[in-house]
Amino acid sequence: MGVRIVIIGAVAAGPKTACRARRLMPDAEIILLDKDDLISYGGCGIPYYVSGDIPDEKELRSTSYHIVRDEDFFKNAKGVEVRTLTKATAIDRKEKVVHIEDVGTGKKDSIAYDKLVIATGSRPNILPIPGRELERIFTVSSLHKAIAIKEKLAKGEVGKAVVIGGGAIGIEMAEALADLWGVETTIIEFMPQVLPRIVDKPIADMVTQHLKENGVSVYTNEAAKEFLGDSQGRVTKVVTTNRELEADLVIMAAGVRPRGELAKDAGLEVSPYGAIVVNQRMQTTDPDIYAAGDCIETLHLVTGKKAYAPLGSCANREGRVVADNLAGIPSTFEGVVGSFIMKVFDICVGATGISLEVARSEGFEAVGGFAVQSDRAHFFPTQALMFLHLVADKSTRRVLGLQGIGKMGDGLMARINSAAGMIARKSSIADFSNLELAYAPPFSTAVDILNVSANIADNLASGRMRIVEIEDFLAWMEGKIEKPDWMVLDLRHPKEAEPFAEKFSGKWFALPYNRVRPELDKLPKGKKFILICNAGTRSYEIQLFLDSVGIEGSMVLPGGLNVIRRLGVSWWPEIG
Amino acid sequence: MGVRIVIIGAVAAGPKTACRARRLMPDAEIILLDKDDLISYGGCGIPYYVSGDIPDEKELRSTSYHIVRDEDFFKNAKGVEVRTLTKATAIDRKEKVVHIEDVGTGKKDSIAYDKLVIATGSRPNILPIPGRELERIFTVSSLHKAIAIKEKLAKGEVGKAVVIGGGAIGIEMAEALADLWGVETTIIEFMPQVLPRIVDKPIADMVTQHLKENGVSVYTNEAAKEFLGDSQGRVTKVVTTNRELEADLVIMAAGVRPRGELAKDAGLEVSPYGAIVVNQRMQTTDPDIYAAGDCIETLHLVTGKKAYAPLGSCANREGRVVADNLAGIPSTFEGVVGSFIMKVFDICVGATGISLEVARSEGFEAVGGFAVQSDRAHFFPTQALMFLHLVADKSTRRVLGLQGIGKMGDGLMARINSAAGMIARKSSIADFSNLELAYAPPFSTAVDILNVSANIADNLASGRMRIVEIEDFLAWMEGKIEKPDWMVLDLRHPKEAEPFAEKFSGKWFALPYNRVRPELDKLPKGKKFILICNAGTRSYEIQLFLDSVGIEGSMVLPGGLNVIRRLGVSWWPEIG
Repeated sequence: MGVRIVIIGAVAAGPKTACRARRLMPDAEIILLDKDDLISYGGCGIPYYVSGDIPDEKELRSTSYHIVRDEDFFKNAKGVEVRTLTKATAIDRKEKVVHIEDVGTGKKDSIAYDKLVIATGSRPNILPIPGRELERIFTVSSLHKAIAIKEKLAKGEVGKAVVIGGGAIGIEMAEALADLWGVETTIIEFMPQVLPRIVDKPIADMVTQHLKENGVSVYTNEAAKEFLGDSQGRVTKVVTTNRELEADLVIMAAGVRPRGELAKDAGLEVSPYGAIVVNQRMQTTDPDIYAAGDCIETLHLVTGKKAYAPLGSCANREGRVVADNLAGIPSTFEGVVGSFIMKVFDICVGATGISLEVARSEGFEAVGGFAVQSDRAHFFPTQALMFLHLVADKSTRRVLGLQGIGKMGDGLMARINSAAGMIARKSSIADFSNLELAYAPPFSTAVDILNVSANIADNLASGRMRIVEIEDFLAWMEGKIEKPDWMVLDLRHPKEAEPFAEKFSGKWFALPYNRVRPELDKLPKGKKFILICNAGTRSYEIQLFLDSVGIEGSMVLPGGLNVIRRLGVSWWPEIG
Repeated sequence: MGVRIVIIGAVAAGPKTACRARRLMPDAEIILLDKDDLISYGGCGIPYYVSGDIPDEKELRSTSYHIVRDEDFFKNAKGVEVRTLTKATAIDRKEKVVHIEDVGTGKKDSIAYDKLVIATGSRPNILPIPGRELERIFTVSSLHKAIAIKEKLAKGEVGKAVVIGGGAIGIEMAEALADLWGVETTIIEFMPQVLPRIVDKPIADMVTQHLKENGVSVYTNEAAKEFLGDSQGRVTKVVTTNRELEADLVIMAAGVRPRGELAKDAGLEVSPYGAIVVNQRMQTTDPDIYAAGDCIETLHLVTGKKAYAPLGSCANREGRVVADNLAGIPSTFEGVVGSFIMKVFDICVGATGISLEVARSEGFEAVGGFAVQSDRAHFFPTQALMFLHLVADKSTRRVLGLQGIGKMGDGLMARINSAAGMIARKSSIADFSNLELAYAPPFSTAVDILNVSANIADNLASGRMRIVEIEDFLAWMEGKIEKPDWMVLDLRHPKEAEPFAEKFSGKWFALPYNRVRPELDKLPKGKKFILICNAGTRSYEIQLFLDSVGIEGSMVLPGGLNVIRRLGVSWWPEIG
């Protein structure tokens, strides 16, 4: 027998570490502990299990060749010993022993280790809202909870649901409830937008609008204050800062926090919020103890600051690095850029790096190149519009982040993933302008939207392009701010522009793009034009032309009316 | 008036240069010349116009907002003067004058320039085959040719077609003919595989098999020797090295070569094959003359050698760099990695960087990590298998290329594009193992197939994994090579494995993956096992286990039977 490796936690990082270590170290004794009975499952699949896309929870714990990953599987196929329902209660670093307790019988025992791996994961945040102990208020933290939620749905016990939290899991759960089960679902988000700090407001508001179009109510800037229940102790209502909502089911999706207590109690360094501190080899402050997955703190490769990134994909890659180092292969995990993607009904939204809002709050003088373009050749029948927002630092030209929204499919992921590795490698706007993406009409355009978003960021950073903030344009249109010298110059086809020019006569002037040069004298004088087309491209060209003939101060509406249309504004004219 | 910029060629790089230069240099006089009357079109869309996916050729020459890009458009919308049917016949560098000729009238004239841009593109290779002057033998080199081909198809004049050349354009044209028009189509390829030097043989052979399943005949290792015609001078037959094929239409898709004559005759440096030599700022050896697009030579960023990359996407990015430099913005085009993607009926195939075969011929000690995995969570209903082949240098660990095949959609492009920027930046296998790709079950897996292909390359480069070459395995199965000590160890589920073990009794032994550890003594002795599963993953695990118990010399079949099945092998058992 070789060294004994004990791993605490058998969901993602733990099993990954165990199996890779077994392959690299045939002589090692490898023991995996978990306090639960269900192990090694794809937690990110829970919303799709609840929705019914995945009929059986066993599929979340099975291999691609349809074997359930249980104790027998780990023993016979992987050569790894798993002890389920075994809770690690303390680590004695001096004696190199983990104290354990049988969850069923309460029997205590201990197990010696040569090397220890902590993969204890995260726990959901429970907001301190009165009534939170009522029945039918769930977090989405384990397969057991997911099974319980689906059971209630299947029994028809849920007519109305409230989801607390407009992050990725909250939105995925809302779709799961509304789409297949027809549950009347409401999302409550404390911040002014969904997906806060992940995408910027225009993209978030497009997601919100799409949720609404699919029957999900969304209330931002709103917090749950109290849960009310019936005589049987079941939740019946959510009282928010603005209203009361009936609810047979409440999903609390308010983020997660690391399970670092075991490490902290053993005297290992943890962050102020409890995440275990590790070096790039995933060693804790005790070199014989490693940690990986949702319980650790990592580095953000854009901000250079410590970060918390509880993602299943990171957990797996971290587990591989732990196993390598256990086996003496010098392997490192450098940090994260926060790559993210999700399905929302018929669209998908994704991001990598940081948003414009985050970039500015981190002190970057950042610009955001907003590109709207067909995801493939505009003449190819399956094309659909995509929206990308590329965030870059003005002085260094470094690209800091990319976010986007597009039709459900893999097209958006193609752009997000292309950016992820580049951003981690500190690439510049010019690197993105020149990035050589594969081109054929069924897949992309000769100048891909990702290149275009970089070109726009270049034009902004160089001061060649000037934009109006979408928020300011909306406020002006809605009469919330006064700008007497502002006027829209609508460059679209007359058929598109006329209904607007009529409805907003006096503030909205229509002259098609290809008539501006020949009919320049038709333009109203003394106005500061907001240049509008469908995507922003024609507007930018006309901005440069107007500058060249001395009509200064014009501003491009980034993304054009293709963005505004998807925000669900109230003032959009009725078009026959 | 500012400087006068004359641009020769108005298809891709030329118009791109003109429009960007106009935006950057409002005072410049910009004149675009083209010998054709149809300009600024998406040449890569031609196969989809021929197929009927794109009904009207005008769509290939229109903007996304449906305006045809003709002379009026360039004048009124873009502020650029275009002279069509104007052939540039010579460049007088001393006088800074381009000599031109009106294609219609033959009238000669000249036009002075301050800065000149050559964007003369490429011309198709015409193979020196007797009979090549017959009617209905076409290249796919211009919109006029495409219109003529489609006209013949629409009139029902084409029952059988032969495509000479199994590169991307040949395959796209074959699909266009066979799929919508029902033409009996044959591809002839001189090399031993389709897509030669772009992908390696296993991937190419999967493409061939898919073409055959969709009714297209493919003959590799075969050359056209002669074209035979009827009394009206129309082609009727293609005589190859192996057979005679009836044909009402022949498409010659044997690559293109640069149109560099104008540059060469003006004394500018051109490559041995006629491509214009430029620096990274796209300047020719005359600093007042730039060149871009299919007529130039560029650098391959993997091999470090001069390369020819006639791609519409590069042409556009090069044009942007030319315009920047004309306007005094120091901008560079560093070179290419050769990113490529194409649709083939229901699948897509793509690549970036170099193939294993090319890598080895360039002197790299290269390994190829062959990964086969679900393109998204294996429990997600829309999942499909994807095949990736990651090529890396064993000693430096640098990733040299990535190629793959998958279900038609954007999933493969997501992986190819993610790799493109990384490969251009000389990233290592470890960089790819750790690449942070966005994960959610509807899009990908927690450990994405791209990470997995790098992990496999790592295992190969480290000597932990040993493989049998797919070609050798096939030769052995087909009795072409003798290997008395070889035996298949089939690790799949007994239901899958039994028909093979029965049919190939004596050389094919079945023992499921999770029974090898407990039932090790059942294995036949003295054999060199070829380890087989569906993807290669289980095989690798068992290889390490067998090594650890002293059963040495086993070899993993890369990609497992999922690859073999897609090669259309004759020996596949009938499974009831």
